[in-house]
Amino acid sequence: MLNLIIADAELELIPADMVEDYAIRKHAKKRNKPAKEIILDSNFMHGAIERYYPGKSNRMGRPDIIYILLQVALESILNKKDQLRVFVHTRNNDIIQINPETRIPKSYNRFIGLMEDLFKKREIRSGERVLLSISEGHVEDVANQTAAKVVVLSPRGNKSKVGEIIQSPDDLTIIIGGFSEGDYLSNVYDLGKSYSIFDEELTIWSVALETIAEYERVLKLV
Amino acid sequence: MLNLIIADAELELIPADMVEDYAIRKHAKKRNKPAKEIILDSNFMHGAIERYYPGKSNRMGRPDIIYILLQVALESILNKKDQLRVFVHTRNNDIIQINPETRIPKSYNRFIGLMEDLFKKREIRSGERVLLSISEGHVEDVANQTAAKVVVLSPRGNKSKVGEIIQSPDDLTIIIGGFSEGDYLSNVYDLGKSYSIFDEELTIWSVALETIAEYERVLKLV
Repeated sequence: MLNLIIADAELELIPADMVEDYAIRKHAKKRNKPAKEIILDSNFMHGAIERYYPGKSNRMGRPDIIYILLQVALESILNKKDQLRVFVHTRNNDIIQINPETRIPKSYNRFIGLMEDLFKKREIRSGERVLLSISEGHVEDVANQTAAKVVVLSPRGNKSKVGEIIQSPDDLTIIIGGFSEGDYLSNVYDLGKSYSIFDEELTIWSVALETIAEYERVLKLV
Repeated sequence: MLNLIIADAELELIPADMVEDYAIRKHAKKRNKPAKEIILDSNFMHGAIERYYPGKSNRMGRPDIIYILLQVALESILNKKDQLRVFVHTRNNDIIQINPETRIPKSYNRFIGLMEDLFKKREIRSGERVLLSISEGHVEDVANQTAAKVVVLSPRGNKSKVGEIIQSPDDLTIIIGGFSEGDYLSNVYDLGKSYSIFDEELTIWSVALETIAEYERVLKLV
């Protein structure tokens, strides 16, 4: 089993101090929801984020990169063969557990709606099955839950080929940063050795893609 | 060089016979553009597509899957090492040539805006460089342009491991369907041998991911 922990993901509802911002209120009105129940999205709220968190409007509010990552991971052959688990840990220490059978909506707008539902109801069910659930916790809690060797991917880590990091079909837990720039907020470097798989920065789904493809090959699935 | 041709992609402007539809007109008004200059998007125009093309509302108007595919392909290590070319051929025989240095907008809405600009202006430039251009042509025109061996991926093809399809660093052209269900509209099966890489249907970006990952490994890039 390959466990991917997306750590410090920039996925959250509108922070309390921002709910009275005029642009946020306008956006909430258009969405027909209270501002505090809306996902922070820098694609639409760049100016508002900049007013409250100067210099952070590229990093904060990035559900878009989580959306693409989940499309890549959950539609992979590795996931269809039930050998992948994906966990999203957020900057606010929320942990999203994802049932591998979950079909992430292809529409970005519907994905945002699903995340808003999840933050509000704390779980999304399909009949008896829990597809998504959210709880409080730190990266190390998820890492411990997976009970496997932990590896941290980071541009700061030792340069290695992905084939050197993933060499056996043993269970493995890989931590990938859920943000578009900067470094981890959590103390992930204490959890395992850190590696860098490429000499330039990669999007988080490109990192996920490489680890998934490598593990599929070690398992001889492709 | 790996050439990916996304064939018969369901990417087009609102068809002429749909521009007077009330839902399309409403959508166009909200977007502040003439209806004929808007990308057909089943995520927002499902009912309208069903009125004009009954039974086609899941297949037609799927810029969303092209968006995810381009994020996967252009952000890959293979592309960053300049060993990937991506061409999008559409159901209407438009051919989109993509400069490998193009950064596809992370925001889905901005991606749609970019595609609308492209269909209107026929090319998108950044200074002197052409990033995206559109011309008329068939899948075989693109395949001939690449001047490499052609392979067609299709659930109808011979079951094979992706490592059997991609065995050498020679230039290779792989055709992937740019649609979410059904079969190719173009006569792609005449262009090369066809293979299926998995026993269930895969999303188009999962197919692209596997071919990109395999070619990276043959080139020893990862």
